[in-house]
Amino acid sequence: MTALDGPVDDRFEPVQRLFASYLEADPAYSAQLAIWHRGRLVVDLAGGAALRRDSLTGVFSVTKGVAGLVMATLIATGELDLALPVAQYWPEFASRGKDAITVGDLLAHRAGLPALAGGTFGLDEILEASDRGAARLARQAPIWTPGSAFGYHALTIGILMEELVRRVTGRTLQAVYEQDIRAPRNADFFLGLPAGEESRYVPLAPAILSAEQEREVAARPPIDALASAVFNNVDAPEDLSERGTSTNNPRVRRAGPSAIGGVGSARGLATLYADALPSAQRPLASADVFADMATQRSWGQDRVLDVPNCFGAVFLLPQPRMPYGGLGAFGHDGAAGALAFADPKADLAFGYIPWPRQHPGGADYRSVQLARAAAECAHES
Amino acid sequence: MTALDGPVDDRFEPVQRLFASYLEADPAYSAQLAIWHRGRLVVDLAGGAALRRDSLTGVFSVTKGVAGLVMATLIATGELDLALPVAQYWPEFASRGKDAITVGDLLAHRAGLPALAGGTFGLDEILEASDRGAARLARQAPIWTPGSAFGYHALTIGILMEELVRRVTGRTLQAVYEQDIRAPRNADFFLGLPAGEESRYVPLAPAILSAEQEREVAARPPIDALASAVFNNVDAPEDLSERGTSTNNPRVRRAGPSAIGGVGSARGLATLYADALPSAQRPLASADVFADMATQRSWGQDRVLDVPNCFGAVFLLPQPRMPYGGLGAFGHDGAAGALAFADPKADLAFGYIPWPRQHPGGADYRSVQLARAAAECAHES
Amino acid sequence: MTALDGPVDDRFEPVQRLFASYLEADPAYSAQLAIWHRGRLVVDLAGGAALRRDSLTGVFSVTKGVAGLVMATLIATGELDLALPVAQYWPEFASRGKDAITVGDLLAHRAGLPALAGGTFGLDEILEASDRGAARLARQAPIWTPGSAFGYHALTIGILMEELVRRVTGRTLQAVYEQDIRAPRNADFFLGLPAGEESRYVPLAPAILSAEQEREVAARPPIDALASAVFNNVDAPEDLSERGTSTNNPRVRRAGPSAIGGVGSARGLATLYADALPSAQRPLASADVFADMATQRSWGQDRVLDVPNCFGAVFLLPQPRMPYGGLGAFGHDGAAGALAFADPKADLAFGYIPWPRQHPGGADYRSVQLARAAAECAHES
Repeated sequence: MTALDGPVDDRFEPVQRLFASYLEADPAYSAQLAIWHRGRLVVDLAGGAALRRDSLTGVFSVTKGVAGLVMATLIATGELDLALPVAQYWPEFASRGKDAITVGDLLAHRAGLPALAGGTFGLDEILEASDRGAARLARQAPIWTPGSAFGYHALTIGILMEELVRRVTGRTLQAVYEQDIRAPRNADFFLGLPAGEESRYVPLAPAILSAEQEREVAARPPIDALASAVFNNVDAPEDLSERGTSTNNPRVRRAGPSAIGGVGSARGLATLYADALPSAQRPLASADVFADMATQRSWGQDRVLDVPNCFGAVFLLPQPRMPYGGLGAFGHDGAAGALAFADPKADLAFGYIPWPRQHPGGADYRSVQLARAAAECAHES
Repeated sequence: MTALDGPVDDRFEPVQRLFASYLEADPAYSAQLAIWHRGRLVVDLAGGAALRRDSLTGVFSVTKGVAGLVMATLIATGELDLALPVAQYWPEFASRGKDAITVGDLLAHRAGLPALAGGTFGLDEILEASDRGAARLARQAPIWTPGSAFGYHALTIGILMEELVRRVTGRTLQAVYEQDIRAPRNADFFLGLPAGEESRYVPLAPAILSAEQEREVAARPPIDALASAVFNNVDAPEDLSERGTSTNNPRVRRAGPSAIGGVGSARGLATLYADALPSAQRPLASADVFADMATQRSWGQDRVLDVPNCFGAVFLLPQPRMPYGGLGAFGHDGAAGALAFADPKADLAFGYIPWPRQHPGGADYRSVQLARAAAECAHES
Repeated sequence: MTALDGPVDDRFEPVQRLFASYLEADPAYSAQLAIWHRGRLVVDLAGGAALRRDSLTGVFSVTKGVAGLVMATLIATGELDLALPVAQYWPEFASRGKDAITVGDLLAHRAGLPALAGGTFGLDEILEASDRGAARLARQAPIWTPGSAFGYHALTIGILMEELVRRVTGRTLQAVYEQDIRAPRNADFFLGLPAGEESRYVPLAPAILSAEQEREVAARPPIDALASAVFNNVDAPEDLSERGTSTNNPRVRRAGPSAIGGVGSARGLATLYADALPSAQRPLASADVFADMATQRSWGQDRVLDVPNCFGAVFLLPQPRMPYGGLGAFGHDGAAGALAFADPKADLAFGYIPWPRQHPGGADYRSVQLARAAAECAHES
C-alpha cells in the first residue's frame, strides 16, 4: 500500500481510518476520497499506487450526475421545466406517441428510448455529433408503452440531455458545463478533457477477478435483447481499449459525452456537489430545485438492468440496493465503482473513485461504507 | 408445554391438532388461536406457559386491520369515500402536490408519506396528540411522485387514519372504535387499554434467536435511508422497554395508536373480524364495502420493505409472500408474529397471537399453516 | 437417440448440431424444431423416439400466440382497435368498474380478470360455450384496481379473446383461425383437431423428474389464493388424463380453446409466425400492427406468477427471464416447454416442441439456446 495522502479534518478521522483499512487489505487497490461538509473540504485523500489526489480518471456513469447538475441550473433559471412535455423544447420529439412524455419522465428513464430499436450509434453520434444521435431517437417509437416501465437509459440519457440543453441554450451541454459550472469553480472534473490536462489522466484498468469471480461471470445467464441493445449500442468496441467507448479512447475523453465520458478526481466531484448543498459557496440552484430533482420518479424493477432501481430526475437515488446517503440525498454511481452525491440534510458532498475497475459494475461496496462513516462524523460534529 | 385450553368444534379438530403439534415442538412457544365460522366461535384456544385465553398482549401492526374495520364503518355510513381526495375532508392535506391523492391512495400506502422527511415524531405526536403529527405530514411533500410507488407507512398510516376520523366524525379513532365497535361487542381488543384491564396484559418478549439467526441478523446489509426513517421515526427507543414505542410502554398501550398500539387477545380479534363476514351478528359494514376495501390497490416491490407486497384499503391482502387466506380475504399481520383476518367466501374469521415475538417480523409462518387448516375444515363442513 | 430427421439449410447447421447434442445427451427427450428465414423453411427437424416431423401434440399456452395472430388480422382490418375500450365491442363488459379497460389492457393481462372470483368454470364454459364463460367474467369486478397490476390470465385470456372475436366477426375465434389463417396455409397447427388428424396426435406425457426435482417440487411453498384460483379454475382434473383440461382430453383438442388447447407441430407454428415477418408470403397483418402488438404494455412483478414478466398485446415478449429473441420479437411459450415466435429484425420464425413435458413449466431452456443459435446463423447469412 501507498500511504494515504492529504488533509483530513479531525472529526472525520474515522473515515480516514476506514479508508486506510481498505488500502491495507488490498495492495492492488487505489482510490481517491473527498468530502465537503458545511462549506469546508473536510476530507481530501488518495491512496494506493495508481492514484494521487490530482489524478484524473474516467468515472463512467458518475458523469450523469454531473450532467444532472447542469440540468439543475437550467431548471433554476426556468429555461427547463420538468413538468412540461419534451416536445415543447424539441418539437421533433413528439413523433410516434411521444408527445406527452415530460422532461421529468425523460430524465427519470421513463421515455422508453434506452436504445436504438435498430442498428447502433456511430461513435460520432454520441460524441461530436450527438444531435444526430438525438435525431435518431426522436424519430423512434418508445420501446415500451409510456407509463408501463422505466429502465436505465445507460447511454441514451446523455444524448437526450445534450439535445435538450442545445434546444434551450443554443450551446452544448459540455459548453454550458465548462463555462457556467466548471471554470468558475476550477473544479477538477471535465466533460471534454483539455489537451493541457492529458498528462494527469490515469487510464482505466480492467477489474481483477478471482477465479471464483471469473466462474461467476462465465456462468451468468444470457442477457435479453433489450439489455444487449442498451449495452452494445455503439459502433465501437465495448472494452477499455483506445478505440472503445470508455475514456481510455482519447476521442471519448476529449468529447466528454454526458452519459459516460466525464474525467476527473474525487475532489472535483465533491466540489461540484458541494454547490448543491445548503452551504454552497456558489449555489448551482435552489434547495427546492434539488429537492424536486431528488424526489423519486421511478421505482420498481428496472426494465433494462432487471433489478429494483430508483431514480429522480437524472439522479440515481439512495435505495435498498444502494443505500448510499440520507433521505433526500442525490447522486450517481458508475461502472468502474465510483460514486458521487450530495446529502443536503447532512450538508455533505461526497466523491469517491477507486482503481482499477471494480467487480461488479456500479458503486464499489466500500463507497457505501465510507459514505455511512462520513454521515456519522457529520452528524456528530 | 402447557396443555391446550379451550373449546373446539369437532369439525375443527385438525386445527387443534396442528396447533398442539407446534406447542409440543417448542417449549418456549405460547399462542392464542380463535376462529369464527358461520356465526359461531368454533376454535378458542390458548397454549404454552405465557398466554391464557383471556390474556391480552400487544400485536403491533395487526392493530392496523382493526383500524381498517373502523374505516369500514365510516365508508358504510358515507362519511368517508375512498374515491374522494383526502383534501376534501382535510383541506391542509392539499399542500405541496398532494391535492389529488385520494382516501383510497392514502389507505393503500400510496401517498408518499411513510416518514417525516426531516426529524422525528415526539412520542406525543403519535399518541395523545396525533393531530400534531398529522399536521406535520400534511405540510410535507410526498417522498415519491404520486403514482410512482407505494410503500409501507408503518407508523404514519395510523396518524393519517386518526386525522381522517377526527375530520369526519369529530371524535378520535380510538373513541369511535370503543363506542361504536368494541363496547357493543364486548370484544377483548383495545385501542387504549383501560386501567382495569392492566392485570391481564402480558408484556411482549424479544424473539429467541438461534446462533444461526443471530448471525443472519448481524449479516444483514444496511437498510436504506427511507426504511431507516420509517422504522426510526419516533423520538423514543425502538425496543420493548417501558419507555419505547411498543405496548410494553404503559403510555403507548393507554393511548392505543392505531398503527401499532392495539392490545388484546386472539378471540378479541376474531370476534371483530367475524362482524365483517356474511354471517356477522352485528355487521360492521356491508359485504360491498369490504369487497371494495379488499380489492388490491397496491402491488409490486414495496418501496419501504423492499419485498413484493399487496394492499387494499388499509388491509394487507393475501399474496405470494403471505398466502394466508382465500380470494377476497383481508386482514393484517404484525411484527410480533400475530395475524388476524376475515375470509368472506369461507365465512371464517381468524385471530392468532404467538409469544414471544417471532423471528423475523410479520406473520409467524405457523399462522399461515393454521389458516390453511382452518379453511380446509371450513370447506369440508 | 433416434437420428435427426429432416432438411436443414447449410447455413443453419450449427443449429442442427446443437439440437443433435441435446438428443444425444438425453435418451428420453424428443423434439421438433422448425425455422423460417427470409421466406424459406431453413430448418425442419424432429428427433427422439416420440416425435416425427408430422407428429401433432399439445402446446398449452403456445396456443395464445397463435390466437394473437388471429387478433392481429382483426386489428389489420380495423375490426378491432387496441386503444378502444373493450366495452365498445362488448357492452356487458362495462359493468363494475371495467368500462375504461381497453382492448390493449385486456390483451396485456391488465384487466384484473385472471380467474373467477367465486366458483370454477364448467369445462363447457372454456370449450364449446366459452360465451357463457365470458359472460361470467363480464359480470365480475376486477380482482385488482385497474392500473394497479397485471398478471397472467392463464386461462381467461382465451375466453376473453374468443368473446371479442365473436363480437366483432360473428364467428368463433376457432372458425376465423381455420378459415382465414390455417386452411389457406395448410399449416399443421389446429385450434380444434379434426377427426381425420387424430392418428397423428402424440399424447402429452408428464415431466420426468429427478429425485432432486421431486424434492424441489415437494418443498415449494404454498401458492396464494389468486394463483390457486387461476390454475384451478376449471371443474375438471388439472392433470394429463383423458378427462382433464389438457389436449389429452379428446374433447379439449376437438374444441381447441385459444388459451391452452392448440395442437400441432413445430413446423406448423413456424409456418404461422413466418407470415408475421417482413418476408411473409401471405402477410397476416402489416409490420406496424405487429410492432404495436410487440410493444411492451406490461412489465414488473406478475401478480399471478409472482416473477418479473413482460407482455405486449397477447404476446409474451423477450425479457430477462426468457431472453428468447431479438428486440421486437414476439411469441409465446407453453407449460410443456414449447416456444414459438417471430423475430422481424432477424426475419426469422421459430417453432419448437419438446416431449415429454419439461420441468419446470414455460419454455424449455434448450429453446432459448436454439433460438440464439438460429439468430447467429441468420445474422451471418
